[in-house]
Amino acid sequence: MTAQLIDGNAIAAQIKADVASRVVALKAKGTAPGLAAIIVGDNAASISYVSGKAADCAEVGIFSETFRLPETATHEDVVRLIERLNADDRFHAILPQLPMPRQVREQEVIDAMLARKDADGLHPVNLGRLLRGELDGAIPCTPHGVMELLRATGIDPAGKHVVVVGRSTLVGRPLAVLLSNKAAGANATVTICHTGTKDLGQFTREADIVVLAAGHVNTLTAAMCRPGVVVIDVGVNRVDAPTRPSGYRLVGDAAMDVREVASYVTPYTGGVGPMTRAMLLVNTVRAAEKLARGE
Amino acid sequence: MTAQLIDGNAIAAQIKADVASRVVALKAKGTAPGLAAIIVGDNAASISYVSGKAADCAEVGIFSETFRLPETATHEDVVRLIERLNADDRFHAILPQLPMPRQVREQEVIDAMLARKDADGLHPVNLGRLLRGELDGAIPCTPHGVMELLRATGIDPAGKHVVVVGRSTLVGRPLAVLLSNKAAGANATVTICHTGTKDLGQFTREADIVVLAAGHVNTLTAAMCRPGVVVIDVGVNRVDAPTRPSGYRLVGDAAMDVREVASYVTPYTGGVGPMTRAMLLVNTVRAAEKLARGE
Repeated sequence: MTAQLIDGNAIAAQIKADVASRVVALKAKGTAPGLAAIIVGDNAASISYVSGKAADCAEVGIFSETFRLPETATHEDVVRLIERLNADDRFHAILPQLPMPRQVREQEVIDAMLARKDADGLHPVNLGRLLRGELDGAIPCTPHGVMELLRATGIDPAGKHVVVVGRSTLVGRPLAVLLSNKAAGANATVTICHTGTKDLGQFTREADIVVLAAGHVNTLTAAMCRPGVVVIDVGVNRVDAPTRPSGYRLVGDAAMDVREVASYVTPYTGGVGPMTRAMLLVNTVRAAEKLARGE
Repeated sequence: MTAQLIDGNAIAAQIKADVASRVVALKAKGTAPGLAAIIVGDNAASISYVSGKAADCAEVGIFSETFRLPETATHEDVVRLIERLNADDRFHAILPQLPMPRQVREQEVIDAMLARKDADGLHPVNLGRLLRGELDGAIPCTPHGVMELLRATGIDPAGKHVVVVGRSTLVGRPLAVLLSNKAAGANATVTICHTGTKDLGQFTREADIVVLAAGHVNTLTAAMCRPGVVVIDVGVNRVDAPTRPSGYRLVGDAAMDVREVASYVTPYTGGVGPMTRAMLLVNTVRAAEKLARGE
């Protein structure tokens, strides 16, 4: 068996087309959805991510602006910028790009945002609503993207056993909550595994679906899978590639041999990544729609 | 093998003694911790629960007052009372006893509380912080009580497989989050099962610890357990008992035969129940301590 690759780019394109038409509808009613991104310092990856997000916004008609503060900005500088953007009606969503320099207390920066302007769904109010099963607010982009990837691929988690590897606030924990919801496209039995799990294979071998968000290469190998498993690979890891100009290449958490036993897998690039980016646009347009409805 | 019964009353008594000494320390510094309970209508169970909670407060030196509104109170009446109690410095914690009459929107009532006065840990900010792994705020009382029950019994969930049966916001979901935390007394691999789980026994037979919060009698039987399993039974169910004056008796979610195979079980009464009540006192004194520290 050779696994079918899930085309995250194609599914993300559908979602972006839907967002674009919602943006047109909003503009017709006088609301131009806007996203404010914040970069503190000169982290090259952050600059690259944010410029990609700005390009995505442009593609679907969302206004975006990037605010840059120097590496030496104080915590208070960042909070003041957040407060200014909270009050700026041009922006329906705010994205403080992480990581920030050491002197900035990231959680407090996130908490300083209006919950309704939280583009990444990481404000405690939004995470709390998620835990209560309320799904109409901002949902963290990667887990939300994984849910949409499954839905668009026709893989219904209901009644299935899903093993989530990784317990981060960004991915593993909210995803476990989403998958276990009593809701269409969810209703799975979910096991959360992590670095404290003694024998990961014992769990993954029982899984119908494995979601990898561990951040380690070869977290899952073919020997740890049962035939026909669905593997969603959130991991992005650098491995040495001396023949490449960059000196490295990006791989996921799954070993390549997983593709010999799985029914579906996401590729290392063009899998979950574009979905995460697309869901940021969904959160932004949703925030603008809510405001336009007077919520 | 006959399971050892976990004495929730004894463990709760230790926690209450600790709370009482913290109350003494607070009063010495000029803060008298206070809890405001709200009952809307004439639900007999609510009245009985709240009077029990008031007695618990008295026992540990916490000031408490119960505010009753008639069955016909409007949603706005309840929110106005919440706002009054938010502003009342005598009360460090507010407990809106659920369920409330149909015209009252319970989630909005909870959301109207100051997060720092949320006695039950159900405000979205507190649930969100829990999902972020921040454990110094108000934590929902039953899952918090289960964690303390395990700790006090010397059962370390680290590296163990815990199956949580039930996905409520009150118990199952926050407990799964707490158990999977990278923290002392946690660090378990956690499976969340529920009514959408096809073969519950397939999961519980692999568990080192089973927590039952399903609300159905005989959710777990001996045949669904591996020998030596630890069973924490949160369930409270009425079954007919014609020979009793009340006509019913209270049983948990575990069948009696579980005691023949388990190493530890909680009894139907005096197990998790007193722990839930004790953790309400912990949340109240914690809220007062935070205020006294100027947080």
